[in-house]
Amino acid sequence: MTKINLMEKLSSFSDHWSPKVIAEMNDYQFKLVKIKGDFIWHNHADTDEVFIVIEGSMCIEFEDRTIELSEGEMYVVPKGVNHKPYAQEECKIMLVEPRNVVNTGDKEDDLTASNDIWV
Amino acid sequence: MTKINLMEKLSSFSDHWSPKVIAEMNDYQFKLVKIKGDFIWHNHADTDEVFIVIEGSMCIEFEDRTIELSEGEMYVVPKGVNHKPYAQEECKIMLVEPRNVVNTGDKEDDLTASNDIWV
Repeated sequence: MTKINLMEKLSSFSDHWSPKVIAEMNDYQFKLVKIKGDFIWHNHADTDEVFIVIEGSMCIEFEDRTIELSEGEMYVVPKGVNHKPYAQEECKIMLVEPRNVVNTGDKEDDLTASNDIWV
Repeated sequence: MTKINLMEKLSSFSDHWSPKVIAEMNDYQFKLVKIKGDFIWHNHADTDEVFIVIEGSMCIEFEDRTIELSEGEMYVVPKGVNHKPYAQEECKIMLVEPRNVVNTGDKEDDLTASNDIWV
């Protein structure tokens, strides 16, 4: 057990849309991810998903509206709800969700990332 | 569902050692708490507990060592492990843990806070 410095962890990778695990709490994982551009529409049938913006700003598009998140803001996407994250400029975020959640949810895509990649 | 601004939520209360719920993800809660001075030795028999420092710095004392956390740093206290948080100056932190976790864990104390207080 060592403490985890979010900025240090973020500086250790540069790829986009590829979540890196930094911590586990019970059967939940904390992941850092850098995003830029458009993700795909998807949902997670079995779990809510938390977004926390560490640096930059991003949007989450829903079927009926779009929310914008800036540094220091968080959002809980409810399970089963279709959403599409995007960011015009690179944005650094933390995700909190159960272990084994696939980033593209119900969709298989080029953007589907490997799970359990730790930094 | 609205987005949650951590600093706005933190500005809405001023008491110490009294966690306020700001979000739920499945059966987990995200709580903000301002701490200053000494907490008590305790543990949580059934769950890990995540500390994320939003502003300031704090320490977590364990039986065999003390770790110091500054802004942007996080720590996972494993379940069942005795610990005592403290902060010389006021520190603003976010906790992540299952719903119904009592702040003083296995101890009943003047510092035992009500659960499920939302801001």
